[in-house]
Amino acid sequence: MERAVRELWAESRDLLGLHSPEAVPRADLPPTPLAFLRDHVSPGRPLLVSAAATRHWPAASLWPTESYLTDALRSTDVSVHLTPDGRADALAPHPCLPGARCFASAHVRRVDFPTAVRLIRGSDRAAAGGLVAYAQQQDDCLRGEYAAVAGDVDAHVPWASEALGCLPEAVNLWIGNSCSVTSFHKDHYDNVYAVLSGEKHFLLLPPTEHHRLYVRDYPAARYVTENEGEEELTGLKLEMEEPERIVPWSSVDPNPSSPEEMAAQVSSFPLYFEGPRPIRCTVRAGEVLYLPSMWFHHVSQSPGPNGLTIAVNYWYDMQFDIKYAYFNFLRSLEISNSPLDNKDAALEGDLEEKND
Amino acid sequence: MERAVRELWAESRDLLGLHSPEAVPRADLPPTPLAFLRDHVSPGRPLLVSAAATRHWPAASLWPTESYLTDALRSTDVSVHLTPDGRADALAPHPCLPGARCFASAHVRRVDFPTAVRLIRGSDRAAAGGLVAYAQQQDDCLRGEYAAVAGDVDAHVPWASEALGCLPEAVNLWIGNSCSVTSFHKDHYDNVYAVLSGEKHFLLLPPTEHHRLYVRDYPAARYVTENEGEEELTGLKLEMEEPERIVPWSSVDPNPSSPEEMAAQVSSFPLYFEGPRPIRCTVRAGEVLYLPSMWFHHVSQSPGPNGLTIAVNYWYDMQFDIKYAYFNFLRSLEISNSPLDNKDAALEGDLEEKND
Repeated sequence: MERAVRELWAESRDLLGLHSPEAVPRADLPPTPLAFLRDHVSPGRPLLVSAAATRHWPAASLWPTESYLTDALRSTDVSVHLTPDGRADALAPHPCLPGARCFASAHVRRVDFPTAVRLIRGSDRAAAGGLVAYAQQQDDCLRGEYAAVAGDVDAHVPWASEALGCLPEAVNLWIGNSCSVTSFHKDHYDNVYAVLSGEKHFLLLPPTEHHRLYVRDYPAARYVTENEGEEELTGLKLEMEEPERIVPWSSVDPNPSSPEEMAAQVSSFPLYFEGPRPIRCTVRAGEVLYLPSMWFHHVSQSPGPNGLTIAVNYWYDMQFDIKYAYFNFLRSLEISNSPLDNKDAALEGDLEEKND
Repeated sequence: MERAVRELWAESRDLLGLHSPEAVPRADLPPTPLAFLRDHVSPGRPLLVSAAATRHWPAASLWPTESYLTDALRSTDVSVHLTPDGRADALAPHPCLPGARCFASAHVRRVDFPTAVRLIRGSDRAAAGGLVAYAQQQDDCLRGEYAAVAGDVDAHVPWASEALGCLPEAVNLWIGNSCSVTSFHKDHYDNVYAVLSGEKHFLLLPPTEHHRLYVRDYPAARYVTENEGEEELTGLKLEMEEPERIVPWSSVDPNPSSPEEMAAQVSSFPLYFEGPRPIRCTVRAGEVLYLPSMWFHHVSQSPGPNGLTIAVNYWYDMQFDIKYAYFNFLRSLEISNSPLDNKDAALEGDLEEKND
């Protein structure tokens, strides 16, 4: 079984033409709907489109500036996600059970947009009681909270909408900086992700590599302010949700903060750390990444000259088809957690060789 | 594992909308390339298009007549596949090892087309030393042997070619009658299958149901005439190929010829006979079936008023993508051959209930 699963990893990367860890196909121009559907959506293959994709958006020139958004949204209240370490929707030490982990959600607060930007720019995950702010709300917020600037980008992505036969289910805005990181997860959406300021750094694993993520059940917790109800934002502490809520989440942190933590991760999650390297893809300002549904992604970011990383993503309803049935089947199989043996190392070697 | 595989069968039929055994989606008009790609090729879902698909083909009115083809091809030599029982490329009793089976290929003979039609019409699998003829050659024969009438049909299927981004790799002509049956197999092609005279009766299983076909290795054999070299066609006998050639083939005969043979099949291949019923699809003269790559199909036929079943199929190169990797993974897993237990019967019951 283990051997068969590892062959699946190798073959799916091979067939998708993803031999090297930096092999996401690039296009200078947006694809036609047919080519997009045939060569990317249907096979489940990511695509990075150059800045030609967004050159006609007013946002492409306006949003990277210092003050356009704060002016346009001066009196608009938006949701900021606050954490002590920039890891919202991620695993954290359980507040009550030493050695255990929980799934931690951010403390969400509504503030006026200029305050949100001030909090983001002042984010500091190193400080004791540090506060990291990330303006994001995955609830179609561009067309909700940010409606005043929604017209600065296309309402949908024409080549994707025509290919997929529908309009986006949600369009989300993300404003943060390098302090915020999104942990490994997958979405039940086809995702078209446009960066407008700064860069987003994706680590990608195809759905066939499910077992490498060690998705396990964690109890949900939420950050709350030390002095709930007060206006001033002081330290954040984790509180377990009541009633208990269980969230299946990836156990893997690909970039542990210390050598000790790295050693612990490698020993606990060998399928991730000793398997084929995740596919890396940096999306620069103006570029657009198509991320197929069900692909695992981990996202970190670098700010642009305005100190912010700004992105808009379009979520399109995915097709639940035979690929999804196969994925569920794969997920239902248990495989052992033993490190790769020599044979499998050779298999990985084969993959690497094709990089040239 | 067995349970997981059976859930895969149920979920893939469910997600493809194939709840009932006669549920192949029908379209009155040919689909647009985008809709075809999105709703059928990408998810791997068959499609039956009404006779509107071929109404403009001269073949639609000419080929079902009594004499058009024999006139047009009077002096053309074509390949006929000859067997004693209409089962070419199918399992047959091993000629030397009692109780064993082999993979039997037809005796192929080049004759002028009017002789081929005479042989087909005179096919008799009941007679001792019977001879069943099937004019077919899966080598792009419409554009080869039958080039003189190839212009009577479209050179390719425009909506399929545009969707798939290529022209057909092969276009094949099939002329037979009810004496010929094609055993369960799959093709590494996307298949667009047009019937021009009579009807084709397909039994279909999605690729996820691989294990139900009991694909096993059989030694290849070939029918030869009792008196090789003579012009007169007398009885056929099976001869094992030399050097030995092994062909992996489905062990299942869905329509055994006797109650005893049925009992033997049911007991040997319970996953087929006790699992969800195969999907049935009859393609009538003028209609076109899209059969996704890797789908298992078994084909029998009924002749039109001219005594012949005539069909043309277009083979398009398939995409070897993540679906194919998943299929190979599934195929690499061994599952037990035990009959379905009660739990699984309940699962099948769920499927059936949705038929209403």
